Amino acid sequence: MRAVDIILSKRDGRTLARDEIRFFVDGVTAGTLPDYQASALLMAILLRGMTPQETAWLTDAMVHSGIRVDLREIPGAKVDKHSTGGVGDKTSLILAPLAAACGVPVPMMSGRGLGHTGGTLDKLEAIPGFRTNLSLAEAKAQVQKIGCALIGQTAEIAPADRKLYALRDVTATVPCRPLMAASIMSKKMAEGISGLVLDVKVGNGAFMKTEAEGRELAELMIQVARGLDKDCVALLTDMNQPLGRTVGNALEVIEAFEALRGKGPEDFITLCRELAAEMLVFGQAANTVDVGRAMYDELIASGAALEKMREIITAQAGEPRVLDDYSLLPTARHERKVPARRSGYVQAIDTEAIGRASMLLGAGRLRLDSKIDLSVGLTVEARIGDHVDESTPLALMHFNDAVLVDEAGAVIMQAYRIGAERTEPPALIKDVLR
Amino acid sequence: MRAVDIILSKRDGRTLARDEIRFFVDGVTAGTLPDYQASALLMAILLRGMTPQETAWLTDAMVHSGIRVDLREIPGAKVDKHSTGGVGDKTSLILAPLAAACGVPVPMMSGRGLGHTGGTLDKLEAIPGFRTNLSLAEAKAQVQKIGCALIGQTAEIAPADRKLYALRDVTATVPCRPLMAASIMSKKMAEGISGLVLDVKVGNGAFMKTEAEGRELAELMIQVARGLDKDCVALLTDMNQPLGRTVGNALEVIEAFEALRGKGPEDFITLCRELAAEMLVFGQAANTVDVGRAMYDELIASGAALEKMREIITAQAGEPRVLDDYSLLPTARHERKVPARRSGYVQAIDTEAIGRASMLLGAGRLRLDSKIDLSVGLTVEARIGDHVDESTPLALMHFNDAVLVDEAGAVIMQAYRIGAERTEPPALIKDVLR
Repeated sequence: MRAVDIILSKRDGRTLARDEIRFFVDGVTAGTLPDYQASALLMAILLRGMTPQETAWLTDAMVHSGIRVDLREIPGAKVDKHSTGGVGDKTSLILAPLAAACGVPVPMMSGRGLGHTGGTLDKLEAIPGFRTNLSLAEAKAQVQKIGCALIGQTAEIAPADRKLYALRDVTATVPCRPLMAASIMSKKMAEGISGLVLDVKVGNGAFMKTEAEGRELAELMIQVARGLDKDCVALLTDMNQPLGRTVGNALEVIEAFEALRGKGPEDFITLCRELAAEMLVFGQAANTVDVGRAMYDELIASGAALEKMREIITAQAGEPRVLDDYSLLPTARHERKVPARRSGYVQAIDTEAIGRASMLLGAGRLRLDSKIDLSVGLTVEARIGDHVDESTPLALMHFNDAVLVDEAGAVIMQAYRIGAERTEPPALIKDVLR
Repeated sequence: MRAVDIILSKRDGRTLARDEIRFFVDGVTAGTLPDYQASALLMAILLRGMTPQETAWLTDAMVHSGIRVDLREIPGAKVDKHSTGGVGDKTSLILAPLAAACGVPVPMMSGRGLGHTGGTLDKLEAIPGFRTNLSLAEAKAQVQKIGCALIGQTAEIAPADRKLYALRDVTATVPCRPLMAASIMSKKMAEGISGLVLDVKVGNGAFMKTEAEGRELAELMIQVARGLDKDCVALLTDMNQPLGRTVGNALEVIEAFEALRGKGPEDFITLCRELAAEMLVFGQAANTVDVGRAMYDELIASGAALEKMREIITAQAGEPRVLDDYSLLPTARHERKVPARRSGYVQAIDTEAIGRASMLLGAGRLRLDSKIDLSVGLTVEARIGDHVDESTPLALMHFNDAVLVDEAGAVIMQAYRIGAERTEPPALIKDVLR
């Protein structure tokens, strides 16, 4: 088999065979297939597409490029949740302890924030002492003991994905649905789970701007999961405004802890309940989604989810007292309000701009190796449909250094479209794809 | 400027700016642009296309990647001819001395044979002692002195083309019209010529199988030449059967020498006359193509073209007596006839297969570094429209080692379609594009 023939096939729009895809991924992993051939093939895939079957084979080959975590000795159906990324999305901090509190093992591997979106790992690291870099053996032992571990992707998981992603990043081949689906799913399929709940964000703060794009990606990921014998469901959820009221690492941790106490904004609580209910069904803790929803409310009301979070923090060397004393979290020294430019109704929010404003304050990174400030960020005060005037703050900026605060404030102001007509807030859950 | 943004533009089907194309070619030449980015862009160009303007800019950038030969101190309009490659195509061996014999300087750089096609350099090297590896300075001095030099592409000419071609070869991006046009034209535009006659071969023995493909490539190359202020004309010529009667290096040299004496098959003589007439017009030796045709016949009849060939061979350290004694050329030890399988009319010849048969005998190379046997090849005995029976040889094989002779014979036999109905031979000159 020759790489050039595989490239030629895809260039001419043909479907690749399973062994051709395997040859490509194995070559990338071993370094025997030169980058220039890999990148030509990636561009051909972007422009010619891949069938769901090819995407499943690609995912499977990427899974097999590294270690697949074997959790079979831990009883029960292991589940995880994956979000395609948004602004203010901190659901993992609720879902992982909550599912584990019901006896559903959650071996969750998360990523870091990039560009305008946040990442669960960064949020967790706002908790003093919290170790996200557990080894796979440590993580497995912790799942066995307390039902959950919250870690980053280790080098042993899907190394082909890391190599291909680095290449895609510099060859303009990132926005390609089959490659995105295979990248996401290969890491999740290697976790040793049997069920995956997908939160596919759509809207101006998400990578998928339209519902149609999000739906296509979601359907593809579900097909890939099914092809690999995993349970999978995808919620298409709104990202036309930030989720919840906080954007920024420590700020989002506080909002998550409040939600574990049953307090907080309705949109965030609702999304957590819906995602959790699906996880509990896959984890065989609930027979129906409705039962799952009721269990969610019960585990919050009883404090069981909060106590499981305490156990996780303690197990991962974090300071558990942060749950009761938020002043132990990194705190920004300054606050400044961003007022509305005019009076009227909030008709739209450029959510990606809100994410960028938070990044300008220091909460996010432009490159994966940028240093971030865990204490800074925003509190979102006005949402779509709210009435504002020049005295109403749209947002509160939390910051340490005044360097880019004016810019961040201007970006936030610009992000709000305010008009005389009231706009109905967008529906949070657009669809559930099974 | 970032390479990834240029790739992204072409990926999305946008037209690249001149400075973006220049950045890409300069980066490839200097080695500062990684191969993986170059190959992603090449694939995007293949699948998204390039406008004639972009192709002209690409050509120009490739010309500027190396030395442009400066022949301004040599009086007269310098011209050259380029063929897109076929089977039995030895016109350069007539055209170069003939044009030079009329005072039109011809600084001709040729290539080697690859796959089923032959190359002028290999044919010239069948002449004992003939040096094709003159330096640019030597070639220029020779053009100044005797009006013509026949050399290979040196490393200083369009180095970007060499690098890109090597990359295209292993990334399935060779058959891409703008890249082909830029590759051909960059080398020719660097020669210091003011006029170029293109022989664009179409048919089953050419790279362009259909007249439509050949026409598109020809029109693109003419646009590129015009954009760079060069005269250019393209003849679309038939390659549905070998040109002339010989295929193989020394065999073709003999046929060319005969043609310089006015002898030989009509198709080959006609094509030489038409191409030469265009060259003489560009070289300002003839006012019209008709005058050019008459001059061709005169230069052949007077022996002036043959004598110019003698001068060229002598100047390039070749043995000039080969012109009078063909036994001084490499000669194959054995001959074998390939008979027709049935009686009837030759309706079609798979010309690429004829080229491959010659390659199997040792006359061609599968890879640019393969060793070839200059003495071997074929004499084509039957052409489209001829009547044959089981006693008629289709071709005569000239060979040294019997290794692949049976295979070559079988390929030739298979290449001939013979039927009861007589087929009219295809027109040699399909069109002239100006």
